[in-house]
Formats: sequence, C-alpha cells, structure tokens
Amino acid sequence: MKKKSAYNVAIMGATGAVGEEMLKILEERKFPVAELRLLASARSVGRKYSFKGKTYTVAELKEDSFDGIDIVLASAGGSISKKFAPFAVKAGAVVIDNTSAFRMDAKVPLVIPEINPQDIQKHQGIIANPNCSTIIMLVPVFAIHRKNRVKKAIISTYQAASGAGAKAMKELENQARDILGGKPAKKEIFPHQIAFNLFSHNSSVQASGYNEEEVKMTKETHKILHDDKIKVTATCVRVPVYRAHSESIYLELTRKPDVSDIRKIISRSAGLKLVDDRQNNYFPMPIEASGKDDVLVGRLRTDASDPHGLWLFVAGDQIRKGAALNAVQIAEILCQK
Amino acid sequence: MKKKSAYNVAIMGATGAVGEEMLKILEERKFPVAELRLLASARSVGRKYSFKGKTYTVAELKEDSFDGIDIVLASAGGSISKKFAPFAVKAGAVVIDNTSAFRMDAKVPLVIPEINPQDIQKHQGIIANPNCSTIIMLVPVFAIHRKNRVKKAIISTYQAASGAGAKAMKELENQARDILGGKPAKKEIFPHQIAFNLFSHNSSVQASGYNEEEVKMTKETHKILHDDKIKVTATCVRVPVYRAHSESIYLELTRKPDVSDIRKIISRSAGLKLVDDRQNNYFPMPIEASGKDDVLVGRLRTDASDPHGLWLFVAGDQIRKGAALNAVQIAEILCQK
Repeated sequence: MKKKSAYNVAIMGATGAVGEEMLKILEERKFPVAELRLLASARSVGRKYSFKGKTYTVAELKEDSFDGIDIVLASAGGSISKKFAPFAVKAGAVVIDNTSAFRMDAKVPLVIPEINPQDIQKHQGIIANPNCSTIIMLVPVFAIHRKNRVKKAIISTYQAASGAGAKAMKELENQARDILGGKPAKKEIFPHQIAFNLFSHNSSVQASGYNEEEVKMTKETHKILHDDKIKVTATCVRVPVYRAHSESIYLELTRKPDVSDIRKIISRSAGLKLVDDRQNNYFPMPIEASGKDDVLVGRLRTDASDPHGLWLFVAGDQIRKGAALNAVQIAEILCQK
Repeated sequence: MKKKSAYNVAIMGATGAVGEEMLKILEERKFPVAELRLLASARSVGRKYSFKGKTYTVAELKEDSFDGIDIVLASAGGSISKKFAPFAVKAGAVVIDNTSAFRMDAKVPLVIPEINPQDIQKHQGIIANPNCSTIIMLVPVFAIHRKNRVKKAIISTYQAASGAGAKAMKELENQARDILGGKPAKKEIFPHQIAFNLFSHNSSVQASGYNEEEVKMTKETHKILHDDKIKVTATCVRVPVYRAHSESIYLELTRKPDVSDIRKIISRSAGLKLVDDRQNNYFPMPIEASGKDDVLVGRLRTDASDPHGLWLFVAGDQIRKGAALNAVQIAEILCQK
C-alpha cells in the first residue's frame, strides 16, 4: 500500500463485538485514520460511536460504500464478506477480513503478524485474519517451533462465548441469572446451555468427526506456516467464560526441550506474556487475558513419560488478539511498507 | 467379608457432598443396611438425615465409633482417614476410603469395580477409591484398552467445583450472583475466581511442574491396571461447572482403531453411555452427566494425522461415579463374596 500520512478506513460490521473492538484499537494504537466510515446492516444504521473525540454515525453497508477507502476491516460474517469484499477491492481498498470467507483461498494471505508478516505484501486486495483459536494457539507454539521444530500439537480448547458474538456473551449472562433465580435457561444463540455447563464447539461436524473449528486449527496452521507436515489435532469446547479463549496444548518436539529455555523464549517473544508461577499456583486465566493484547502462557513442563513432550496452557482475548487486534496489526504493517 | 443378610454401615464424613451422596446411593441401590451410623466432626453433630423412611442423627466421629460396624464408607478428608481408619480396622470393619490417604499404599487395593474388582479381595482392612478424575477417565479408556492396548493417554480436564466440596459449589454460585450484581467475587475456597473463569487445578504444584491431581491420574492408573508402562499425562483445569467433570482424551493405540468398533465397545461396557450424535452436535455435557451413574462418552474420531490416534470426550458425575457410587459399588462386591 502506498505510504500516506493517514488512511481512509471503513469498518464493515462496526456494531458487532469485533467491530467495536476494532474501533477502540485503532484509537488506542493511534492508527493514522483520515476518514472513518462505520458500516453495518440496515437495522444498525444511525447508531453512534465516538472515535478520537468525534462522533461517527453508522451507515448502511452497500456495494458502493467503499469509494475512496484505503483499508476495510471486515467482521460482519462470512456471507457478508463474500458479497461485499469484491466491491471494496474494485474500489481500490485492501480488505482485512476477519471471517472465514477467504482464509483458505490460495490468492489470499492468511496472516498472524508475529509469524508471517512477509505474506501481507503478496495480497491481491484481500488479507485474511485467522480463526481466533488458531491465533491464540499459534503465537506461542510458533515461538517454540522456530527454535525446536514441533512435530505434532495436540490441543484441547476452552473457548469463550464471545466467539459466537456479543449476543452469545449476553446469553451466558442471561442464562446464569435465570438459573440462579430458579428459572430455566433460555437458548437462542447456542444449541446447548452455556451457563454452568460446557459443550463441544457449536460448529457443524464433518464426516471425519471433526467440527469446523477443529479443522480450521489444522488447515490454517498449515497455511500460515507454509508447512503441511506439522501435525495439528484439536478438540474444541465452549466453556462459560465471556471473552478469552484458553487452550491446553501438548507438543511433540524434535529435540528434548529444556523448560528454562522455553520460559526465556516465551518471555522474549512479541505478543506473549509468561504467567508461570508454580509456587503460587498462578497460571494463565481467561479473566486475566480479557482486555489484554498478549497471549498469556504457562504450565510449562516436560512430559514425565516422554522427554520430547511439552505441555503449555495459554489464554488470550478472543476479541482482541483472536480478531480485532490481529486485523489492526496487519493494517499497521500494510501501511508501513 | 462374611456373607450376611445385612451389614452395619458407618459413613465417615456424612455431612459432606460425597457423604450425603453415599447415603442416597445406599438407599437407591437397596444396599442391605442393618445398622446405619452417620459420623462427622463435632460441629455437625445433631444434623438429621432420612434413610429408608427413618431419621438418623449425626454422631461425633471418635476412635471408638466403630464397634460392631462391618463397613465404613469414608470421605472426611485425608488426615481424618489417616487418623481414624486404623481404629475402624481394629474394630473389625472394612474401610472403603474415598480420600487420597491410602491410595498408593502397597497393602491397600485401589479399585474401580468395572476394571479391577478382583483386587477387592486382597484387602487388609482398607480399600481405596481412586481420584475422581482418574475414575471418570479410566472407565472409558480401559474399555478401549482391553481390546486395543493404549500406549499413551494425553488428557485435558474440565473439572467441576464439586471436587473441592459443597462449599466450593456454593462459592461458584455466590460468585456468579455477585458478579451479575456488579459486586466483586469473594474468594474463600478456591485461590482464584471460579465464576465465568477457569484456572489450573488448585492442588499444589510439584518440582516436575505437574500438580498433585495430574500426578494422581498417572500413578493411580498404573496401580489400578497393574501396568507401569501405559503412559498417562494430564493437564487438570477447574471450570465453572457444579458437579460433573469433563475430560478431553487423546489416545495412542497399538492398532489402528475403527470408530464403529469403538462405539460398540462403549455401548456394551458397564458404566458407560455413548453420546455421540454428530448430526445434531450432541455430545457429553456436564449438566447431562450430573446425577447420572454412567460416564457419558462421545466425540469419537481418529486422528486425521495419525491413524493410531483416537479422540474421545467424556463427562461423569464427580460426586457419584467419581466418588460415592464407586465406593458403594466396591461395598457391594465386598459383600457378595
């Protein structure tokens, strides 16, 4: 992208949980915004947001919404991205898409800035943001992988309600309140009760037995690392937590890991924070990852039954690093070059 | 144990979550109880419980509480078992101990009735009930293991508050209510907020980096199976769920598993219920395992990257099969012989 002093930015899906966070992060990180356009569906038109002290009104997302826009941050759902991203590209914008619409498209780079920033420059108008579970797993796993090749990652997730949007977070709250009040829990967003319960991830299950979320973690890892040989297998689970995903990760490494070396690697890697205090039983927790940029990493220990095995437990904000922050980081790199 | 028409039974720790469930299960399963003695600490003396239509009053647990007792079901904490079990044995009773006090004692059988009932007869006065996470994992894993040897099990747990007792369940409820009311969560039992959060298991962390709960899962499996070669490595996590533990289990098997065979094995095994409906995204959930005897088993699928790998996801009632039910089942076998 041509270097400018400031860029015209549109947020597609500005009223969603991720869209709102994108706006906050653009302001927090002092992204050089010239014109700001907040786009959403007809029913959200007229909602107002404050950005750098000025008030902006949400406009309806239309095919001609992108005139003069440099960067579109998109998070309005896969079908909306599929429909509108081509119009944005035609209008000369670069779309950074947080949906799954284009992630596996060979022409679309899939980027985690801490891992493959170089892929950003290969874009043909669209850059995809990986799935939240992939990002939160892969930032710490890649930091280890670059020093000691990961042969296989076996992952069990503990995923927050936020991954299904702001309404799902509200459903967790409402269900908890109803259950505490002795009333039955109402289900609207999730297929099963989320409060005081957990369930296998609510994406559809394929013939292989894996759900879509689990398949994304494998395929997206291969694409981001440009390496189909690393084995990634996951079980994805929703838990009654608002907005940060946790993941229990077991790695089979090429060489025997040394935990103190791994601690140093985590401490020195961008986007990660070591939280690994055995004495005080203090490790990554979703409430502490919420609202933070870093993925928290702890429970580092080798497998007593296999010296090549390494456990870690991570927690990262699903809305920030899992979505909005990663997209804004891509925009920042895009504008630097 | 000498066969009788009915047995004199004492419950040690009768007012705890597990003690109360033991009483319920004795009645439900029509255990032949002659005399019933409910024992607890001084502060619970006088509490009343109904059993088969009669009212029983809690008496203080003392060294001379066991005269004439045949079977003691003990769940009052490890230090209490250590102190009082020897007096019960001296008085001629068999102690079925739900605490960790004697589990690794070479003279004490550690028993899951579905797996090693034959060990019950080797007792010298004390029989130990395994840890709840071990039981809920091992009943399904053993069913597979006996047909296709498990080389290694890699487990991530999603453990309910109940494992830390009735007060911990109440703490989850109170914290949820306070947070929903905009008040800070009060911590008394758990070291970290449990409502809308999760954290690494609250047992102490050893020099190896594993917490005690994780070490139990490995060592107890070895003892129950009389096999130190099976590799078991776990990450144990508390989640905001009341009383059923869930576990995400990855198995490395000797032969390539066939999922339809595994389904048959699970369906036909005592103590297990297959809940594996891919089309409806319906799998084991802790709210559905609560109050049930069976461990629910689902998400059965082979690892796409390794045909010897098999995933399963299980949920079991921590208070029932994880503790009280397993103990009563041991008592039933003890009395049959």
